[in-house]
Amino acid sequence: MTDSSTSSSAHQRQGRAFDALRPVRITRHYTAYAEGSVLVEFGQTRVLCTASVEEKVPPHKRGSGQGWVTAEYGMLPRATHTRGDREAARGKQSGRTQEIQRLIGRSLRAVFDLGALGERTIHLDCDVIQADGGTRTASITGAYVAAHDAVSWLLAQQRVAASPILGTVAAISVGIVDGVPLLDLDYGEDSACDTDMNVVMTGAGHFVEVQGTAEGAAFSRAEMDRLLQLAEKGIGELIALQQKSLSK
Amino acid sequence: MTDSSTSSSAHQRQGRAFDALRPVRITRHYTAYAEGSVLVEFGQTRVLCTASVEEKVPPHKRGSGQGWVTAEYGMLPRATHTRGDREAARGKQSGRTQEIQRLIGRSLRAVFDLGALGERTIHLDCDVIQADGGTRTASITGAYVAAHDAVSWLLAQQRVAASPILGTVAAISVGIVDGVPLLDLDYGEDSACDTDMNVVMTGAGHFVEVQGTAEGAAFSRAEMDRLLQLAEKGIGELIALQQKSLSK
Amino acid sequence: MTDSSTSSSAHQRQGRAFDALRPVRITRHYTAYAEGSVLVEFGQTRVLCTASVEEKVPPHKRGSGQGWVTAEYGMLPRATHTRGDREAARGKQSGRTQEIQRLIGRSLRAVFDLGALGERTIHLDCDVIQADGGTRTASITGAYVAAHDAVSWLLAQQRVAASPILGTVAAISVGIVDGVPLLDLDYGEDSACDTDMNVVMTGAGHFVEVQGTAEGAAFSRAEMDRLLQLAEKGIGELIALQQKSLSK
Amino acid sequence: MTDSSTSSSAHQRQGRAFDALRPVRITRHYTAYAEGSVLVEFGQTRVLCTASVEEKVPPHKRGSGQGWVTAEYGMLPRATHTRGDREAARGKQSGRTQEIQRLIGRSLRAVFDLGALGERTIHLDCDVIQADGGTRTASITGAYVAAHDAVSWLLAQQRVAASPILGTVAAISVGIVDGVPLLDLDYGEDSACDTDMNVVMTGAGHFVEVQGTAEGAAFSRAEMDRLLQLAEKGIGELIALQQKSLSK
Amino acid sequence: MTDSSTSSSAHQRQGRAFDALRPVRITRHYTAYAEGSVLVEFGQTRVLCTASVEEKVPPHKRGSGQGWVTAEYGMLPRATHTRGDREAARGKQSGRTQEIQRLIGRSLRAVFDLGALGERTIHLDCDVIQADGGTRTASITGAYVAAHDAVSWLLAQQRVAASPILGTVAAISVGIVDGVPLLDLDYGEDSACDTDMNVVMTGAGHFVEVQGTAEGAAFSRAEMDRLLQLAEKGIGELIALQQKSLSK
Amino acid sequence: MTDSSTSSSAHQRQGRAFDALRPVRITRHYTAYAEGSVLVEFGQTRVLCTASVEEKVPPHKRGSGQGWVTAEYGMLPRATHTRGDREAARGKQSGRTQEIQRLIGRSLRAVFDLGALGERTIHLDCDVIQADGGTRTASITGAYVAAHDAVSWLLAQQRVAASPILGTVAAISVGIVDGVPLLDLDYGEDSACDTDMNVVMTGAGHFVEVQGTAEGAAFSRAEMDRLLQLAEKGIGELIALQQKSLSK
Repeated sequence: MTDSSTSSSAHQRQGRAFDALRPVRITRHYTAYAEGSVLVEFGQTRVLCTASVEEKVPPHKRGSGQGWVTAEYGMLPRATHTRGDREAARGKQSGRTQEIQRLIGRSLRAVFDLGALGERTIHLDCDVIQADGGTRTASITGAYVAAHDAVSWLLAQQRVAASPILGTVAAISVGIVDGVPLLDLDYGEDSACDTDMNVVMTGAGHFVEVQGTAEGAAFSRAEMDRLLQLAEKGIGELIALQQKSLSK
Repeated sequence: MTDSSTSSSAHQRQGRAFDALRPVRITRHYTAYAEGSVLVEFGQTRVLCTASVEEKVPPHKRGSGQGWVTAEYGMLPRATHTRGDREAARGKQSGRTQEIQRLIGRSLRAVFDLGALGERTIHLDCDVIQADGGTRTASITGAYVAAHDAVSWLLAQQRVAASPILGTVAAISVGIVDGVPLLDLDYGEDSACDTDMNVVMTGAGHFVEVQGTAEGAAFSRAEMDRLLQLAEKGIGELIALQQKSLSK
Repeated sequence: MTDSSTSSSAHQRQGRAFDALRPVRITRHYTAYAEGSVLVEFGQTRVLCTASVEEKVPPHKRGSGQGWVTAEYGMLPRATHTRGDREAARGKQSGRTQEIQRLIGRSLRAVFDLGALGERTIHLDCDVIQADGGTRTASITGAYVAAHDAVSWLLAQQRVAASPILGTVAAISVGIVDGVPLLDLDYGEDSACDTDMNVVMTGAGHFVEVQGTAEGAAFSRAEMDRLLQLAEKGIGELIALQQKSLSK
Repeated sequence: MTDSSTSSSAHQRQGRAFDALRPVRITRHYTAYAEGSVLVEFGQTRVLCTASVEEKVPPHKRGSGQGWVTAEYGMLPRATHTRGDREAARGKQSGRTQEIQRLIGRSLRAVFDLGALGERTIHLDCDVIQADGGTRTASITGAYVAAHDAVSWLLAQQRVAASPILGTVAAISVGIVDGVPLLDLDYGEDSACDTDMNVVMTGAGHFVEVQGTAEGAAFSRAEMDRLLQLAEKGIGELIALQQKSLSK
Repeated sequence: MTDSSTSSSAHQRQGRAFDALRPVRITRHYTAYAEGSVLVEFGQTRVLCTASVEEKVPPHKRGSGQGWVTAEYGMLPRATHTRGDREAARGKQSGRTQEIQRLIGRSLRAVFDLGALGERTIHLDCDVIQADGGTRTASITGAYVAAHDAVSWLLAQQRVAASPILGTVAAISVGIVDGVPLLDLDYGEDSACDTDMNVVMTGAGHFVEVQGTAEGAAFSRAEMDRLLQLAEKGIGELIALQQKSLSK
Repeated sequence: MTDSSTSSSAHQRQGRAFDALRPVRITRHYTAYAEGSVLVEFGQTRVLCTASVEEKVPPHKRGSGQGWVTAEYGMLPRATHTRGDREAARGKQSGRTQEIQRLIGRSLRAVFDLGALGERTIHLDCDVIQADGGTRTASITGAYVAAHDAVSWLLAQQRVAASPILGTVAAISVGIVDGVPLLDLDYGEDSACDTDMNVVMTGAGHFVEVQGTAEGAAFSRAEMDRLLQLAEKGIGELIALQQKSLSK
């Protein structure tokens, strides 16, 4: 059942500043069997990210001496306000799902030395338990931590001599709602925004992906600049949270 | 990675008696949007069961004045020791998945008065977060609680005048391992057992489903009787736990 | 066109006793090319069961030294009173079809020594020409005879040194209609029954599968006992018919 | 298992003249529920053709006042010497299957007045029980008889005032093997032939379909003329057999 | 949008004689990357035919020393008067598409010595840019020229010692409209015709395929003879045009 | 066959300046039946863009009074250096294809007043005849012109009172190759680049989409600024070319 009471975006922020993240929680070892298993929460959004090591690579990497890092994304049917179709029952993944899982995979590969990984694959599965906006950026942020745990496992098992991870990576959404640039949109804000931008950055402050879309009015260069600044601030905070979580 | 250290079934029971359930936890309101949302845990097995109300029915019930109760089942790719294929990516549900979701649906319909429900559907989604044996029986046990919460929501909304639920229902697995009948098999026991039986019963002590399979040697009538007794005991305890959870 | 004249179950039994099988006919060598080819008839139900030998095994058995026995099930579109969709045209097998073919495969494997079979597969195809209830149990009963003929062919060809068949297997449905336990339900009885149970047993009198479902009211332990007794009687008779057919 | 002993085409004819049909048998009322149900046999080729009446039409005929006649074709997995994949399990019909069922549908529609049929559909299901060449032409020949029985049923039920059947239709294959034009090829001849032609004709001696294919060497106009003459002879005989069968 | 102004077939012929082809243009090297790339136009019908060489063969030819020639056919969604579904989006090729691509493949293989080609595949892709009738016959006619260019490339690369092409092949449609036999039907004529025949012939004047279909009334032997004569005339002209194009 | 001679990016530019477009050609009325039909060429890249008007809308717009603009994208199998699989034959569109067609659709909707369009759909089909980099940006640029022609047709037919087009839209790719920012990458440059960015802008100089991806090293804010400047320059030129083409 969709909650029909629509609240103003001001209300939804519930006092949160325009440049503030929602409360972010990163829980490692959330499930028992995966080499890496992280529950990441951005406010009401909850995504389970697991990293699984497989000792083989897809055909295009066979014999190359290089490994592969890939991602799959899914949403439980009732993660959302209204129940959505189960993709397994419908028999195919939506274009949106494929777009997101390709994005997660590219983002993680950006911080991996595939040669140092060796001919094995790390599968990142990002499954949305509850969706309140920003599921793809939460997925990337959590998948990094899960991948890091899987690499620690590989090191502990002495399957790799040195970590193939070259740096950190995290992601956040930003957008313009009623003319106001906002960091970390929840579902209500995302539905109301004119411009929606997903930004993926490294710990070194460089861009891995920038995907900006004018949902309503096209956006100016000045607006873009302000959104990128907000994203840079948010990603800095996320990377600190990732490091803190991994240091435990 | 499959854990290659195989332990004896004695070890896996870890002191648990042959007729003891694993620790069972039922957590209601596990997610925020569904009309019913229950995390059910049987030891290491964890299943999220949501109940979603939809104000329409499938074609075979249209115009009948009756409602419908149906279930879907899925397993997250890394719920298991070794990562399994994502069914949405493969483009179809396995025979096993379909068999299980049909079983869950039939079991829940056994305690519903579809006429009293009215022309609406309750969708039960059972998604396995972690699998250590008994996922289908945990799903039925949890789905009952989620369905009950959805019915409470319907009553609170005054969409139904009286509850269409006719009784309680729960399920458990039993089996014979190394000649010993055991209640509530975990994954290791399930893999080693000669006979595996899933039993679904009502609170009134009647059978809704009995599915016994000889994985190894065929089983005698006497063995079957002992298994049914064990199941009856376990289901009695599960129904008490459901009631306790719902009374909170 | 569904025949709209509904007859009472008493009429449909046409004098048949509550514990009597319908007339059962087993015709070997029904088609010319398969290693085993059996038309099995339980009253108006007619199923063609063929056994095909293939000199390779599925991936999970390769290099194991063991063989495999597997089954597929189908229903001709107009085997039934009303024409059903052709599964090949619809592009997928129903959950019911998959459930049945998995049951047939498990039942037959219960009487096979896969090691003695060697690395080859016996495919059992059960295609329903006409359906009047009990198609899955007729399939198992007929598939056993077809598999036996295929094994005789393997012996004659000296591909196996000794028969990998460990015993006989047959199956029957039982159910409770209007409070009366009945053996071998036809379609009208099956549609009207409260409880429906499919039982698979060996010639030694042990259970391979028991699948009981409460279609209407849940069933008591006492009812279950009476149904199992009926099934035991019927399966004994079926096994005698299989032996007689194979002795010709 | 394919029979590896290859026999010369002379041997395979087993004394049959170059312009002789194999023994043709047409058995009406082969199954009990369909409005028309015919087992047609051309030598070892056996096809079950059922005609099912449905009181609605596909979208392109809705509201037109016209009916529709359509066909589906399938082959049981072990109808052939070597077991073929089950199309329902593979999830799609082959190009060959679709080509054949389109041909059967067009051929039958050629003798139907769709306006006189009224807004209903006759589904013709042609399922090959055993395949020894000529399955598509046997299907057309048998489907005509099944369709005729379904029309008789419609007349008896007073759903149509007059028969919508405008004439008879039958089909046969012809081909050139080792330079010799032959009527009604069996599987061995079909595999060995240079030219293969399927011909569908009406009782009035006109062509509905001619599909000639050079499997080996291209064929001359003179060869084509001889093949058409053979087909004309064979179809004349088939139409007489159809009439004889329908007169019983 | 379908042009609703229907013109008489006389008008559509626009002065073209009953036995005249539409203006035919064959443009080689239409795209840059394929080994053969031909735009073929029959009046308003335009098909792009590419030939691609691949240094491997499908499973049924592996290790045989023989090559393979195969075709795929597609129609751009708006090649036609009214937009059709995109087959890639719908997830399957229609029966018509499969029938056509099988026809193109067989026709081209009729003039290839697969042994002389060696273990490699020539893929012929026929994509209809604009459809005004006769797309399958234009495809065959153009694919021959593209295949010839691919063979010239193989010869120039010294991958084959001698051309595996045994002769020329071309195709045309003929039909009877309002009782008049016509050569090379455009879309309007094709929609109005009683009989439609596609004929594929070699340069030596022999038939590779003859596919005649009575869309309305069945056709007589005399009518068939007149259609074959027309086809023979048209194909002779097409083969001359192919040769002229290849001689440039 | 992929051309194995790799040329330096300097050579591939063939004297083209870092901030120069390839020769762009826009050919209107390329095919005859679509309401808009445009062949757009960016150097060797050629895409056929058709716009088809359909007098109905998808379910989510029914009864809304609003229209819809949507796009589909495809690539002919041999548009590329090496033949790719045909998506219709494989039975599904790749993630890349879906991502591109969603981008084209969003970009065009950004300049449409869906209310002024009325309850009808404009389908934009972008089919790549030859691919040498930049196919998605060429598609958007060409689709705008095709959509404009379709709107002119609607105006001429008096189906809409005023144009629903709010402004112009075009797209270009930019990237960094060997440290040098380049406008309008061809295939060789695209394969070699570290950063690849697709930019969609309106004639008013605002952004509709910005999609930047680090293929190799992550990119700095300064690099992003230089790429956006290049894109702005290129899109200004493309919009002038669109206007010039439409003014003919």
